[in-house]
Amino acid sequence: MAHMRRVAPSVPVILDAKRGDIGSTAEQYAHEAFTRYQADAVTLSPFMGFDTMEPFLKYPGKGVILLCRTSNPGGSDLQNLRLADVPGQPRVYEHIAQQAQGPWNTNGQMGLVVGATFPEEIARVRELAPTLPLLIPGVGAQGGDAVATVKAGLRTDAQGAITGTIIVNSSRAVLYASSGDDFASAARRVAMQTRDALNAAR
Amino acid sequence: MAHMRRVAPSVPVILDAKRGDIGSTAEQYAHEAFTRYQADAVTLSPFMGFDTMEPFLKYPGKGVILLCRTSNPGGSDLQNLRLADVPGQPRVYEHIAQQAQGPWNTNGQMGLVVGATFPEEIARVRELAPTLPLLIPGVGAQGGDAVATVKAGLRTDAQGAITGTIIVNSSRAVLYASSGDDFASAARRVAMQTRDALNAAR
Repeated sequence: MAHMRRVAPSVPVILDAKRGDIGSTAEQYAHEAFTRYQADAVTLSPFMGFDTMEPFLKYPGKGVILLCRTSNPGGSDLQNLRLADVPGQPRVYEHIAQQAQGPWNTNGQMGLVVGATFPEEIARVRELAPTLPLLIPGVGAQGGDAVATVKAGLRTDAQGAITGTIIVNSSRAVLYASSGDDFASAARRVAMQTRDALNAAR
Repeated sequence: MAHMRRVAPSVPVILDAKRGDIGSTAEQYAHEAFTRYQADAVTLSPFMGFDTMEPFLKYPGKGVILLCRTSNPGGSDLQNLRLADVPGQPRVYEHIAQQAQGPWNTNGQMGLVVGATFPEEIARVRELAPTLPLLIPGVGAQGGDAVATVKAGLRTDAQGAITGTIIVNSSRAVLYASSGDDFASAARRVAMQTRDALNAAR
């Protein structure tokens, strides 16, 4: 972290730790993420409910990004099931998006993780959570399409201006761009290509 | 871990890490839990689905204990919601119990976490998952009742024999039994009292 802050001070750091534990443990995980690691945001699993998120929301200016619809093959096992007693019978991930746009987001520091492998689901989450930043993994090694991702995650307002914040991350495609001596330049090349593909899609 | 193995070689160690991440990360978490820490079992969050559990199931003899119904105040936020399209419209935690008793438990190494603060839900999980070990936190600091917990987690078969494995853990009540110089003897006393209360309840 000290190295990253020194060489890239304007780049936000998101700790993709997927924490989710009872309040007393969550307090310590929040301390770890924001005080020890000095991260700008952390990812959390919503499975254990709101009190497992609260300790993270007490840190001013720090982001709390909830898993909503994940890009792995088993992501649909629970997240895509429909809820019987919630108005409109949303799927689990839709319900999480609604809770994060509503009661859980007590201080405006909440965001959502939505995988790039399902652009139609990114669009659905954007509809349900119009103002939340979306963290979108899966462009790159997981095969998500950059153009479809950007189109689904951004919105155009009544004046034709683009709105909505999306943070698209590519990890393995960059990290493992080459296993040879050119690993650094290969990683840079893939990172730039990904950036350009995303910018072109705007 | 080396110390615990030396002084208490017959005591199983469960790493309550609540992991839940995509396959490539899960592989490394499994390596951490079972090779680095040499734990006997690890707790996992089911939120991201079966492929996030699979790497842990590849270690012979190691336990995989899924969060099912947790004992914290927000545990009901998602876990108690009813599913519209699953036969019988089970609650999320009931569905997880069914999956863990059925298709997810590919090698007989799976168990479930069910909080002691809800004995009627322990009984329901035992009904849906008759052969799975249940890890039950919440007796002690979280206020769960030992007698109700044991009654709900065990079963009596047709011959009147008690069946079912439950593992009841008490953490903070033991760890923080005293903040004075008598912390060790106080922790021992509370641990023994908890053990005796559980045994009496059988």
